[in-house]
Amino acid sequence: MSDERILYAPLRERLVSAEAAAALIQPGETVAMSGFTGSGYPKAVPMALAQRIEAAHLKGQPFQIKLMTGASTAPELDGALAKADGIAMRMPFQSDPDARQRINAGTLDYIDIHLSHVAQHVWFGFYGQIDTAVVEVSAIRADGSLVPSTSIGNNKTWLDLASKVIIEVNDWQPAGLDGMHDVYYGTALPPQRKPIPLIHGDDRIGEPSLRCDPDKIVAVVRTHGPDRNSPFAAADDSSERIAEHLIAFLRHEVDKGRLPASLLPLQSGVGNIPNAVLAGLARSGFRDLEAFTEVIQDGMLALLRDGVLRYASCTGFALSPEGNEEFKRNIDFYRQRIIMRTQEISNHPELVRRLGCIGMNGMIEADLYGNVNSTHVMGSRIMNGIGGSGDFARNGFLSIFLSPSIAKAGSISSIVPMVSHVDHTEHDVSVIVTEQGLADLRGLTPKQRARQLLDHCVHPRYRDALEDYVARANRDSYGKHTPHLLTEALSWHQRWLETGDMLG
Amino acid sequence: MSDERILYAPLRERLVSAEAAAALIQPGETVAMSGFTGSGYPKAVPMALAQRIEAAHLKGQPFQIKLMTGASTAPELDGALAKADGIAMRMPFQSDPDARQRINAGTLDYIDIHLSHVAQHVWFGFYGQIDTAVVEVSAIRADGSLVPSTSIGNNKTWLDLASKVIIEVNDWQPAGLDGMHDVYYGTALPPQRKPIPLIHGDDRIGEPSLRCDPDKIVAVVRTHGPDRNSPFAAADDSSERIAEHLIAFLRHEVDKGRLPASLLPLQSGVGNIPNAVLAGLARSGFRDLEAFTEVIQDGMLALLRDGVLRYASCTGFALSPEGNEEFKRNIDFYRQRIIMRTQEISNHPELVRRLGCIGMNGMIEADLYGNVNSTHVMGSRIMNGIGGSGDFARNGFLSIFLSPSIAKAGSISSIVPMVSHVDHTEHDVSVIVTEQGLADLRGLTPKQRARQLLDHCVHPRYRDALEDYVARANRDSYGKHTPHLLTEALSWHQRWLETGDMLG
Repeated sequence: MSDERILYAPLRERLVSAEAAAALIQPGETVAMSGFTGSGYPKAVPMALAQRIEAAHLKGQPFQIKLMTGASTAPELDGALAKADGIAMRMPFQSDPDARQRINAGTLDYIDIHLSHVAQHVWFGFYGQIDTAVVEVSAIRADGSLVPSTSIGNNKTWLDLASKVIIEVNDWQPAGLDGMHDVYYGTALPPQRKPIPLIHGDDRIGEPSLRCDPDKIVAVVRTHGPDRNSPFAAADDSSERIAEHLIAFLRHEVDKGRLPASLLPLQSGVGNIPNAVLAGLARSGFRDLEAFTEVIQDGMLALLRDGVLRYASCTGFALSPEGNEEFKRNIDFYRQRIIMRTQEISNHPELVRRLGCIGMNGMIEADLYGNVNSTHVMGSRIMNGIGGSGDFARNGFLSIFLSPSIAKAGSISSIVPMVSHVDHTEHDVSVIVTEQGLADLRGLTPKQRARQLLDHCVHPRYRDALEDYVARANRDSYGKHTPHLLTEALSWHQRWLETGDMLG
Repeated sequence: MSDERILYAPLRERLVSAEAAAALIQPGETVAMSGFTGSGYPKAVPMALAQRIEAAHLKGQPFQIKLMTGASTAPELDGALAKADGIAMRMPFQSDPDARQRINAGTLDYIDIHLSHVAQHVWFGFYGQIDTAVVEVSAIRADGSLVPSTSIGNNKTWLDLASKVIIEVNDWQPAGLDGMHDVYYGTALPPQRKPIPLIHGDDRIGEPSLRCDPDKIVAVVRTHGPDRNSPFAAADDSSERIAEHLIAFLRHEVDKGRLPASLLPLQSGVGNIPNAVLAGLARSGFRDLEAFTEVIQDGMLALLRDGVLRYASCTGFALSPEGNEEFKRNIDFYRQRIIMRTQEISNHPELVRRLGCIGMNGMIEADLYGNVNSTHVMGSRIMNGIGGSGDFARNGFLSIFLSPSIAKAGSISSIVPMVSHVDHTEHDVSVIVTEQGLADLRGLTPKQRARQLLDHCVHPRYRDALEDYVARANRDSYGKHTPHLLTEALSWHQRWLETGDMLG
């Protein structure tokens, strides 16, 4: 790496190995790291820290940290530290298989909170002092400010609040990222808060780089490594059909005058289905769309390239290796159309409500009355976490949840009598889509919602059983506002646990 | 009534009887009325409409309306129309016993949504056209604008959107209300929305009266009647103890530097416990407090009088007859310290987050993991509705839920293995208080929350059973992140249905 990525001389003097940097982190510390959906996380120090922890454990010495990030990271961070049994507490979102296994075994403490709440709850003092921040950047400018890499997440908060800071400068990240970021420095604690001066989703309201007191920076580590960059999976038939139902609905809403022709800013979860929706929008003749979202996937790059999407605002990326190549090759083009923000801004309730975002998120299951479970399998095993879905579902113009109607070879129905865990209440869900069809729940009573879901979303394999439950609940329920049979409400889940099939 | 309450001459010419006004409402209409927590609702036209509906029904003619308000009203409105079987659909909140009985019998369609969502969902077109608005005001000014009475609720939206308008001028309401209101006219539909320019809870950002095209006003009716004004119940021992726990916590947070000495703007639900909390704050030496809330109760008047509370922002009142007398007697004093707003502003996520409100709301039950049920008894019978609790719980600085630990002579525990309905998810609940103590759930994992609730909140009668559930769930649950035994999770509720006691 040439020195051009570290233009502030005093920080060049703090260049050390990852091992030397990791040695500055002590057992019991609260460590806040960069990283959001597998982008922009530190690549070297967490691995070195994991080795240090394993060495300590071999000597019988306890060594764990409390770990915070933006959102999910990668095997080099969550995976390595979880395998080393080095995480005492993890917040706010993760998706690593090793960490998940430990969380569900009850040996790793995990706190799953709204992504828009993370920074402010730390500022409020709800999580104590941050000892060390470990943040990947793409460059250090001559004035000492830090050019973020492929995610910002909570980095502003970590750099502001940490007692000491370790910086990884990753020259695998393109230099052309410089100018893509917009770090808002107008946040404050109540009662000093002011309106956030963002009116259009592509407004720039901040600075292109992160401030950090150089005296706090105890180590700088050079890295050269890729983000997680998982391969892109082509959309399957189910995703395509979900996308078709959703796009037909959006077109209908435009026809009815309830949405502008260019829709409203789109928020889109990560995965196969959102990618299919994006591709479907492109084919459907929509133009001049906007994205005010958390994460940019391959599909969004294609829409930007084709002019379907006017701009995309985000806090991180989730690209395939090919998507990343495309991004790097045409970074000057994308820098004009992508604005990267802190996650407290990308997910801010004030902005999501003002802009009128259309939230589109996956789910694990929904129940008859429109309650949605985004996090727990069979009520007790966490999958990943709520992420930002609640920020958009509660405060946006439309909150849409998408899922295939069945899972695990048909042994699980995504539409159940009662969800086994609630992340989005009946008050927060506008539309549910499966490959079977679309349930428009707006302005409906609980029983009317059940009718929509039965008629449009439930898989044929489960329709009779669900109709039977509804009929008996309508007859025998204690109250008839939200009819339930409490002895059966969770029986589908229990039956799956016992027999491997919700129908037994 | 002298003409001084109707200073705009063309509207004096539209003075008619309540019966004549009610005759302008046709079967099948969507009718939007004023009213919030038993204040500022129309007193005469709904009764005349109920009579008209009953007469039609006697002749075998169908006659129902879809009814929207600000929030709950009174027997003269919800009660009369429900008894007449005149309501096909009710939105967004009500607390009338007759209406509740019909809702839970399955014969009255009820849609329970966040109070901050009502106006925008109607503007978005999710509820179709509003045919008639029936709005109580305290006076009509010489320029034709309308001085609201003791609630504003959604009146701005109703007057803007209704095809025709019926105004009730109630001269029982004090003339001194004029100047207390602040009607914000800066709202818009996305993508035209701008920041709401309210920075302090007592900022005035609007106009003192409501605009209404006089050509839409088809009838003006004079009334002279009191608001619901339910008697004030003195705080009981349980409420006093809940208040003590909460106040000790707030003082602790001030000591730790996490809250300013004058706290942050308080939002307080309606009822015995909030009143006890307010009284307790006064006794505890807190000064210069602020209230950014929905409803002003007797307790808040006392705090304003004593200088404990610097101001109170609200959208309605819930006063006892004595409280109302006090309010009228000293209205010039209160007008300097009370700001009445539309409910989309009083409950706006943007403002609740900016101001950092401390939300204090009642609940029906909470579960081990901090999920809160505010609306449903035994999962299926609705009590009232979610009201504005979600607006504050999701977006405020602290979301606090308060309840006695037992109900119905001890046969019901307010802390249960799994709530039978979720209105506030585990991601949205900071603190739970019962007369037993206070559980601080911030920054805790699900299992740590369960420990807090077991140690501090559950009633002794239920402690062993709950400890037993937790121990077995920790051992046998499918996942150990949020341990549950699905065959037992709702068994306490089922046992109460079968035996009248959650323990059997």
